[in-house]
Amino acid sequence: MIEVSTPITVTLGPHRQYPIHFRPLGEVPSLMAAAGLRRGRCLIVTDDHVGPLYADRLEQALLGAGWSPRRYTVPAGESTKSLPHLQKIYDVALSWGIDRRTPVLALGGGVVGDLAGFAAATLLRGLPLVQLPTSLIAQVDSAIGGKTGINHVVGKNLIGAFHQPALVCADPETLATLPPREWTSGLAEAVKHAFIADADLLAYVEQHMPAILERDPSVTHPLIYRAAAIKAAVVGEDEREAGRRAILNFGHTFGHAIERVAGYGVFTHGEAVALGMRAALYLSRCLHPDLPLERADRLLRQIPVQGRLADLPIPSLMQAMHADKKVDGRTLRFVVLRRPGEAYVTADVHRDDVEAAWLFARGELD
Amino acid sequence: MIEVSTPITVTLGPHRQYPIHFRPLGEVPSLMAAAGLRRGRCLIVTDDHVGPLYADRLEQALLGAGWSPRRYTVPAGESTKSLPHLQKIYDVALSWGIDRRTPVLALGGGVVGDLAGFAAATLLRGLPLVQLPTSLIAQVDSAIGGKTGINHVVGKNLIGAFHQPALVCADPETLATLPPREWTSGLAEAVKHAFIADADLLAYVEQHMPAILERDPSVTHPLIYRAAAIKAAVVGEDEREAGRRAILNFGHTFGHAIERVAGYGVFTHGEAVALGMRAALYLSRCLHPDLPLERADRLLRQIPVQGRLADLPIPSLMQAMHADKKVDGRTLRFVVLRRPGEAYVTADVHRDDVEAAWLFARGELD
Repeated sequence: MIEVSTPITVTLGPHRQYPIHFRPLGEVPSLMAAAGLRRGRCLIVTDDHVGPLYADRLEQALLGAGWSPRRYTVPAGESTKSLPHLQKIYDVALSWGIDRRTPVLALGGGVVGDLAGFAAATLLRGLPLVQLPTSLIAQVDSAIGGKTGINHVVGKNLIGAFHQPALVCADPETLATLPPREWTSGLAEAVKHAFIADADLLAYVEQHMPAILERDPSVTHPLIYRAAAIKAAVVGEDEREAGRRAILNFGHTFGHAIERVAGYGVFTHGEAVALGMRAALYLSRCLHPDLPLERADRLLRQIPVQGRLADLPIPSLMQAMHADKKVDGRTLRFVVLRRPGEAYVTADVHRDDVEAAWLFARGELD
Repeated sequence: MIEVSTPITVTLGPHRQYPIHFRPLGEVPSLMAAAGLRRGRCLIVTDDHVGPLYADRLEQALLGAGWSPRRYTVPAGESTKSLPHLQKIYDVALSWGIDRRTPVLALGGGVVGDLAGFAAATLLRGLPLVQLPTSLIAQVDSAIGGKTGINHVVGKNLIGAFHQPALVCADPETLATLPPREWTSGLAEAVKHAFIADADLLAYVEQHMPAILERDPSVTHPLIYRAAAIKAAVVGEDEREAGRRAILNFGHTFGHAIERVAGYGVFTHGEAVALGMRAALYLSRCLHPDLPLERADRLLRQIPVQGRLADLPIPSLMQAMHADKKVDGRTLRFVVLRRPGEAYVTADVHRDDVEAAWLFARGELD
């Protein structure tokens, strides 16, 4: 049994912590009060997919508790994470009238969380932020840890800030309306957390994969809770990504290259990470011959991926890896597993092994 | 004698501190090395007034020390603190190619420091920032403490972030080319620091005012050093402006109203603060009858101010004070002096006294 009822706490310092709740949106006002937010105006940022489904429910609860909410809706999709959309949020917030204690509520998936989070980070040099993730990837990953930002034509997430939320409230019910491909995408990140930090959770996923793919809440909720707790623990150890937090990039050096070469949107981020983890597992086995590659890979192959990795030329993928922003002083670094549940970062890999890892992820090696 | 030779340290926490040096620009590369910055690319942001005078000197020193600097020049003036200019810095930096350890060097006055500082705060979620203030107001105030940001049509500095520099290096020689009105403006902020925290420095200013106005370096340097040290101490106690840092706003509730009503640029910020401090002193004496108002006011009247406060209607000024972003939950707050060198924040003032303070600052009351 995985314990799922108590809130998770992200602890960043002796007096800096915030809770992650898995509660209905209707309870958000009381959670905001408990987090010390002062009743008054609050700005809800949502998108045109999530807003029509859940914003009314949230607004009614806020109005009932004495808040004065205002909703601002952005178009759904990655292209919304841009300077023009950020500027519109600035315009709406500042012409409405806010002060330094006016909270911004990010109701949506990763795009809304990153965009509204960055607006909150930079309006009046920082407003309280309430993350209300409604996608799986946001609930287990992007809403936790304070990374906010927007894209630039040169690359994704190149403009941003670390801005920790005052609280995170993930309503499990909102996942019911998630499109299948977004579920898959989030599942990849949840499984990634198991790979890097929790062999027991990995065994749980292995055991329950069919029910997870069918989105049976009684099976998925424990997975989501534990995956979120892993993220919370890792960012608590390394708020600004100076060290350990890099293990969260397991599969990402490969995955970002896939997204870059295929063109953003061909693979979802999670699909690219799922494929990237297959390559990263192969690379890990090159360094640690005892790693149970077949077993781990069998699990990853169950995550449905649309799009064919074999269509992408390996030389292009190799080159794209070097363009990734995790390039640090010209050295390419990889997250590898010492064993399932234990990850570390290394630059000490052979180019031949990286190329072979690509072949493996394409299913062209055993 | 005021000690001026050792660097000032801004201490924000047990492992978070940075130095403020008063050294020639040619020494910047060795100070950067001492601050742990890794040699490689660095981006210099300057403006078209300061750049032609000092950027070559800085670049030569950086090249000589093995750095690869790139210069980006913005137009001088407050209108440069805008989203379009910020976006150009993003474009230049990201298309050039930077990584998370690429420093941004802000060579100029408050505008360059705020704009380049905000770019550094938000590129790759935070690059190392080197503040190289060349104006008096930047050397004693704006380059210290980590406030960065840009303006919005609704008001000044409404978009920004706290981003502490890795180091500050103020070259005293750059002040020689400062236009007279910018000198005056900076002087007002330096005197403000004496009023709020250092009665000895206030006596020093009183004693040496003629030489200070003539910009005699042997007299002004100790003032600048001590004024910077006061700013460093206050922000060290309250990095995010949660409490004590608000005393730095002495004269600013009045001053911001003057700037707003007159239209930005009619009075310099320092001129508005000089007038605002006269009003704030009057208000302080209403609460503390022993305050030596005449003596303090005599000092402030020696700071030259262009523009006539008497041209601004008092009802407009009263209204503008309420629009200031320091309005916090609808309560207007003022920084007042208990005695020279000791300031605190209060909301407990009478409207009649505030109106009388305006009359006093206009010279229409004794």
